Amino acid sequence: MVNYEPIFSNIARGMKRSEIRELLKLTAKPGIISFAGGLPAPDLFPVEEIKEMSRIVLDREGKTALQYGPTEGDNRLREELAKLMQKDGVDITSNHLLIVTSSQQGLDLVGKIFIDPGDVVMTSRPTYVGAIQAFNSYGAKMIGIDQDQEGTQTALLEAEIEKLAAKGSKPKFIYEIPDFQNPSGITMSLKRRKELLRIAEKHDLVIVEDSPYRQLRFEGKTEPALIGMNSERVLSLFTFSKILLPGFRLGWMAGPNELIQKAVTAKQSVDLCSPPFNQAILYEYLNRGLLEKQITVIIKAYREKRDFMLSMLSKYMPKLPGLSWTHPQGGLFLWVTLPEHMDAGEMFHAAIEKQVAYVVGTAFYPDGGGRNCFRMNFSYSSMAEIEEGIQRLTKVIGSWKESRESAIITP
Amino acid sequence: MVNYEPIFSNIARGMKRSEIRELLKLTAKPGIISFAGGLPAPDLFPVEEIKEMSRIVLDREGKTALQYGPTEGDNRLREELAKLMQKDGVDITSNHLLIVTSSQQGLDLVGKIFIDPGDVVMTSRPTYVGAIQAFNSYGAKMIGIDQDQEGTQTALLEAEIEKLAAKGSKPKFIYEIPDFQNPSGITMSLKRRKELLRIAEKHDLVIVEDSPYRQLRFEGKTEPALIGMNSERVLSLFTFSKILLPGFRLGWMAGPNELIQKAVTAKQSVDLCSPPFNQAILYEYLNRGLLEKQITVIIKAYREKRDFMLSMLSKYMPKLPGLSWTHPQGGLFLWVTLPEHMDAGEMFHAAIEKQVAYVVGTAFYPDGGGRNCFRMNFSYSSMAEIEEGIQRLTKVIGSWKESRESAIITP
Repeated sequence: MVNYEPIFSNIARGMKRSEIRELLKLTAKPGIISFAGGLPAPDLFPVEEIKEMSRIVLDREGKTALQYGPTEGDNRLREELAKLMQKDGVDITSNHLLIVTSSQQGLDLVGKIFIDPGDVVMTSRPTYVGAIQAFNSYGAKMIGIDQDQEGTQTALLEAEIEKLAAKGSKPKFIYEIPDFQNPSGITMSLKRRKELLRIAEKHDLVIVEDSPYRQLRFEGKTEPALIGMNSERVLSLFTFSKILLPGFRLGWMAGPNELIQKAVTAKQSVDLCSPPFNQAILYEYLNRGLLEKQITVIIKAYREKRDFMLSMLSKYMPKLPGLSWTHPQGGLFLWVTLPEHMDAGEMFHAAIEKQVAYVVGTAFYPDGGGRNCFRMNFSYSSMAEIEEGIQRLTKVIGSWKESRESAIITP
Repeated sequence: MVNYEPIFSNIARGMKRSEIRELLKLTAKPGIISFAGGLPAPDLFPVEEIKEMSRIVLDREGKTALQYGPTEGDNRLREELAKLMQKDGVDITSNHLLIVTSSQQGLDLVGKIFIDPGDVVMTSRPTYVGAIQAFNSYGAKMIGIDQDQEGTQTALLEAEIEKLAAKGSKPKFIYEIPDFQNPSGITMSLKRRKELLRIAEKHDLVIVEDSPYRQLRFEGKTEPALIGMNSERVLSLFTFSKILLPGFRLGWMAGPNELIQKAVTAKQSVDLCSPPFNQAILYEYLNRGLLEKQITVIIKAYREKRDFMLSMLSKYMPKLPGLSWTHPQGGLFLWVTLPEHMDAGEMFHAAIEKQVAYVVGTAFYPDGGGRNCFRMNFSYSSMAEIEEGIQRLTKVIGSWKESRESAIITP
């Protein structure tokens, strides 16, 4: 038997399988209604159109689509994406864009170009588990800042940055998901966005804006993208996974040229280029104006699902002091907070027994916390599953609460 | 103006654009005959069959093919690949395989799970530039071991390992491309393979076997894959890029379960999973036995091109003492050694002026050297281009030699 332990890197030794992904395995069992994953609704995938675009690409340019491509990505696709961003109020050209093999790769590249072990990264609290994992893999020390209904509390953020400054330290960057945040569903208010950028200017900091859901707004006013408010201090990540389909593993990174160039260099050693075949198909799809139509379809469907999940929560959930959930204006998730004394992690196994699943809140806390919270996805399940799943969840919460209370009364 | 320099990681600060890729940009100019890239011949891509498989996949399983998939990869594809390896004499099952987004990602994952800054990695000299770049990006210190016609000189390798041991140090792994090495085209002899594994056993080391060309043997006897000779100490990387097409960015990693599991965990934070759509198409392609037929086609075409390039080199090259080239038994490359006093890097710009391109040898030397060498690719160019390109190259070498000699005589 070979002992491999001594040859692992320090990072690899500390690597843990993502809790969320291990739990997701449990939720994949037949019969379980899962609100856990962040999966888009497969019924909405434009399968026929993708088939048609694949045929067109292979007929017209099979030899180049199946060959290696430039690290920066397909120029035609980058042009289309620049146009898409311009419509969103971002003054950008295609040479400020890098096609990445999913926005998770964007997070990995961000880690690679910015983080040395021990470097500080500011995040909101809770925040996206995949970002925690990517930044951890470069040895980041993450400091989480609590959110309220307006998003990350910028006053707390600035206080924390000043505390670091007093110790001669400084974060490498601030990580934010301003629109329909994963996991909370909260959208950052305009006032807070301005504050965030003021703080970045004042303290000479860069912001990494992770924006997978931005286009999926169901209601209310669209706030400007951070990259649209400041083109020098914001590096943004986008993905096709939520607005179209995840199976191509394609996303894009946008930002100051110097940062994009550094990411391109890093990407050369990571995978040379993203799949040119997939990029050519998406170029074709975007060029025909199909993405905007598809986003309209997704928004309508997800809005209905969100509305239904919210109404089911109101209808079935026990009236407990301290039990609440967010009302997201878009995206894929809402966030449930249980009474302080309840532990969503302990309750998870009872939920699995009752054939319903969520993601425990602790997975989204980079520096501890979130024990009495969990994330619910409303994009994936059918209406019938949402109703049945919420009923099951209600029973779990009800009986869990009782068993805990009786445990306290009769020790 | 924001100064981004202070927020870059140490690795990012040291990152240089790959020399090979910068030079490749020059070689892409119209009119240039390029022997530089490692591109497969696009005329051989089975475009019609890929179109048919895409259609079948989208018709049958569009909703799963366009969704997220498991990090380990499509189980059906892994089964097919296990069978392929079994036919090659490797006793392996699919749970020892991880699908990666190109074997370049395999190299990046190897770097991530093994290398801390300053760690020693043994490589042959010259070796694959993409591996140098990937390992450099984790701060590896690479020690290159010279090759001869039988591959890496294992006696030198062992001496170097013993020298390290005397200083209390030890390499993290040995990186090898045993079959039709990139860039030299040399194949490691059976004797050397056995020696390599003996050394790994004796010094308790792991070998990373990079094997993109193994299936492309034109002549001679197939030597066993290193992973087929020792399943505990060898982690192997394979890719579809050279045996089928690069445009899907798919490859696979095979090895001891503990190492594969570590790579899976690392891959979770890197891109979650490789594109399920592309994997499903390749499963379909392999399941129909099409890959083996395609490999036969590629071997025949590349053998003819290699033969032609060798005959053109014999026909046109000046008879200079010290000028030689390798005779690869397979793969995509051969390696030219110029007389000691000639610098292929300086000569490169003269070559570009004469509209012919190669990759300068220094790109393949992890620790210096290779100035009088260059790599030639024979898979990409047409026969006519090979003849014309070699004639141009001959003129460049001839006139470069003269100008240098006259420079020495008349100072």
